Amino acid sequence: MISARNQLPGTIKSITLGAVMAEVVMDVGGAEVVAAITRNSVEAMGLKEGDSVQAVVKATEVMVQK
Amino acid sequence: MISARNQLPGTIKSITLGAVMAEVVMDVGGAEVVAAITRNSVEAMGLKEGDSVQAVVKATEVMVQK
Amino acid sequence: MISARNQLPGTIKSITLGAVMAEVVMDVGGAEVVAAITRNSVEAMGLKEGDSVQAVVKATEVMVQK
Amino acid sequence: MISARNQLPGTIKSITLGAVMAEVVMDVGGAEVVAAITRNSVEAMGLKEGDSVQAVVKATEVMVQK
Amino acid sequence: MISARNQLPGTIKSITLGAVMAEVVMDVGGAEVVAAITRNSVEAMGLKEGDSVQAVVKATEVMVQK
Amino acid sequence: MISARNQLPGTIKSITLGAVMAEVVMDVGGAEVVAAITRNSVEAMGLKEGDSVQAVVKATEVMVQK
Repeated sequence: MISARNQLPGTIKSITLGAVMAEVVMDVGGAEVVAAITRNSVEAMGLKEGDSVQAVVKATEVMVQK
Repeated sequence: MISARNQLPGTIKSITLGAVMAEVVMDVGGAEVVAAITRNSVEAMGLKEGDSVQAVVKATEVMVQK
Repeated sequence: MISARNQLPGTIKSITLGAVMAEVVMDVGGAEVVAAITRNSVEAMGLKEGDSVQAVVKATEVMVQK
Repeated sequence: MISARNQLPGTIKSITLGAVMAEVVMDVGGAEVVAAITRNSVEAMGLKEGDSVQAVVKATEVMVQK
Repeated sequence: MISARNQLPGTIKSITLGAVMAEVVMDVGGAEVVAAITRNSVEAMGLKEGDSVQAVVKATEVMVQK
Repeated sequence: MISARNQLPGTIKSITLGAVMAEVVMDVGGAEVVAAITRNSVEAMGLKEGDSVQAVVKATEVMVQK
């Protein structure tokens, strides 16, 4: 169990690999959620399109727009 | 328009105010999303329960869990 | 209106594109401010040198050095 | 020397202390920059109004708005 | 399994609770590591002094100082 | 002196350079700590394998896992 307050279930739609970073696009309840993580994380976790995952975000990283 | 890739529409369910920080709980498509922002932001924006808002998160702040 | 407390007006001086990330260097009142955002954000927003923009930073991301 | 790309010189205008967090408002070249740091950092550094400081931000935490 | 690259095993030394935030001080291999998380996370996880935990940090949040 | 609460001494084990970002792997007391910083920071600081450095993390970026 991790202290991050936001853990949204979704599915990986696409992954773009750079030399150091990777962009992982997820479908979360019909909305698109994008994560920029290291390429090494993608490879260590064996992430691929179609995987069931959670998008996880610490509460201090969330802003509110109105 | 802001570069943050994640902008999820939702509704404010509750706000807890501390001396410096505030916790804003939103309903985003049935899921709960929590933001820890400054109390001054809550007051400057006049945020209150029931407001239609967006939860905004920079892609570099999103992790993937599997 | 977004809850991020810091919104500094400036001008884009240069943009470097990687496969996933991009570095955007801005002139903010004579000082240089650097943002690392996704390449896709740069393209979606059509950012280019000379654009008038704001550098936006959440208060929880700012440190103080003395 | 720290890798954070953004180090903006300024002066502390006000400090608000909570139980855990503190809000430090700085004047940076005439603009207001706000940091939310721990109260313990404020006390360990002896920060007070009028101090000459730098607002430090990692490039991955900066967004661009247009 | 979470994509965050840094997961350091440690023990909770102390917890300070504010209205919204909490400070959790951990001993990680003899060094002190401090986390500022929401009070609600501390309570939901039942964190207390002496607990064996991991300090988790996304690689994009780590700076290098020399 | 910087307000970031976590400053862990270590040694650089490897550096991977991308077009915009770089991954710096450090040995911190026998544990591996990974930083994703800009390539320009690596070059401006002249970072290289074997350098004695500190991994620096703001407390608001640390999560707790149990």
